[in-house]
Amino acid sequence: MSLTQASTDILRRALATAVVVPVTPFRADGSPDWDTYATLTSRLIDNGISVITPNGNTGEFYALSQAEARQALETAAKAADAGSEHGAEILAGVGYDIATAVEAARHARDHGARMIMIHQPVHPYVSAEGWIDYHAAIAAAVPDLGVMLYIRDERRTGAQIAALADRAPNVIGVKYGVRDATRFAAVARDAGLDRLTWLAGAAELTAPAFWAVGAHGFTSGLANVHPALALGMLHALRDNDFPAAMRKWEAARRFEELRLADGSADNVSVVKEALAQLGLCRADVRPPSRLLPADVKAEISGILDGWGLR
Amino acid sequence: MSLTQASTDILRRALATAVVVPVTPFRADGSPDWDTYATLTSRLIDNGISVITPNGNTGEFYALSQAEARQALETAAKAADAGSEHGAEILAGVGYDIATAVEAARHARDHGARMIMIHQPVHPYVSAEGWIDYHAAIAAAVPDLGVMLYIRDERRTGAQIAALADRAPNVIGVKYGVRDATRFAAVARDAGLDRLTWLAGAAELTAPAFWAVGAHGFTSGLANVHPALALGMLHALRDNDFPAAMRKWEAARRFEELRLADGSADNVSVVKEALAQLGLCRADVRPPSRLLPADVKAEISGILDGWGLR
Repeated sequence: MSLTQASTDILRRALATAVVVPVTPFRADGSPDWDTYATLTSRLIDNGISVITPNGNTGEFYALSQAEARQALETAAKAADAGSEHGAEILAGVGYDIATAVEAARHARDHGARMIMIHQPVHPYVSAEGWIDYHAAIAAAVPDLGVMLYIRDERRTGAQIAALADRAPNVIGVKYGVRDATRFAAVARDAGLDRLTWLAGAAELTAPAFWAVGAHGFTSGLANVHPALALGMLHALRDNDFPAAMRKWEAARRFEELRLADGSADNVSVVKEALAQLGLCRADVRPPSRLLPADVKAEISGILDGWGLR
Repeated sequence: MSLTQASTDILRRALATAVVVPVTPFRADGSPDWDTYATLTSRLIDNGISVITPNGNTGEFYALSQAEARQALETAAKAADAGSEHGAEILAGVGYDIATAVEAARHARDHGARMIMIHQPVHPYVSAEGWIDYHAAIAAAVPDLGVMLYIRDERRTGAQIAALADRAPNVIGVKYGVRDATRFAAVARDAGLDRLTWLAGAAELTAPAFWAVGAHGFTSGLANVHPALALGMLHALRDNDFPAAMRKWEAARRFEELRLADGSADNVSVVKEALAQLGLCRADVRPPSRLLPADVKAEISGILDGWGLR
């Protein structure tokens, strides 16, 4: 069964928000702490987050086994009451080879997810035609799910996205993770600004500029720590109040810069350290992430104080 | 049981060669053609190739399911008579999260492989400490196997490689895939030129310059098609005959440039198209690779004619 136009409209509207990618907390022995994962997911929803992305990069998707990734999906879906009338939306991250991605997408559907986010292919050799084929094959296997693309490669053009959307009508959105707002403006228009829901895929610091040129939402890791800050920026942008949005931008800035330093080496570590300082989960990450040095931990303490969270 | 010094010396010497990454041929229905995979592996060995890397990038590792990757390893190991006195060496590609990589490494060992190549982590957030931890954890799980690192990130320094080698004594080699010979010269010296076997990891076109500054081998996809050309370059370099090596370089150049075009989009497609034109396997690749347009196919025909293979 394919997505109806009514369902497409509902899902596209649902996507136009602050989409949170939850962390995957670990126990002292290194195994995932699913109870805490559920608690953190519920905390996000209780604080007004309406779309949750298990198995995104902030969830250390590439440090999880496939069995663990399935458990992350199930835990998030249960905590979100996914598929029920009043549940939050689950946007399930899927990736790797086509067969593995399809299997994960069907598993997500079986647990109430109505949307998937297809990770950028990790394959080192990506042709334009093959990029389209890859996504079209996964989308075709779950025609009743909404599909969001995750683009982190500046070689992907609007024409390629349009060709994919022509072939795969259940592609409803794009998480555009290249940090260039002007390139985004061109790509979105070339693909068709109105036919897809566009998200600023590199989080809060890119959100105002992307919003000005056509995005209607953004993805967030920061919201794991401070959902009200992410939602405050969202509401300012929805109100077309860019000065207010930029005050939130200033509040988010140093935290996000710590996450971006050294090629984003500490992207997840910074979020988990902040959550640990708030007593919400352990700071542990899996390699190739690292635990943070003392000076960065201290700076995070200062940020949390500034946010009034400690 | 850990690697003995004698075993380490044997494996390090074995690595100093033209290390071939075989393609994974597909049937018309898209499934891997294991019979042809075995035939192609045997052809390489019959033509003088002594180290085979199943599940490398030229083998479309990231387009295979984990079950298919295991089958690729088993097929290559059997065709190479791996583990026997007169067999070729299997250098098994492993990757993804640590648990998955360890499982693949142990599976490879069970089938006669004596070495693994750890793919560059696909995780988007790589810290220096976490990069070391990731590789050390995999290496420690198979202390009796030789471990080759595959480096494609210019942020990895010689000091990081040395710190890893200090912790993981079974790290015996590095496939250095950044295409900058001068950077390679510095990184190899900072890590310890003599403590590891260094390979030019971006194939024939980088091999002479890398050899001049310290590499003792290179990896090859071209050898799938024309093993004598790769071995001819190897022998010229071993003879310290750079003019002769550069004649092989000229012979390889256009083929490799086709593979490098558009961010290496057609890296594998070019090799498989050439094999198809020689009647050795189908040209099919999996997305995000693509079948080649007619003009590129025609240019490959001309190259094969020039090589005297058609």
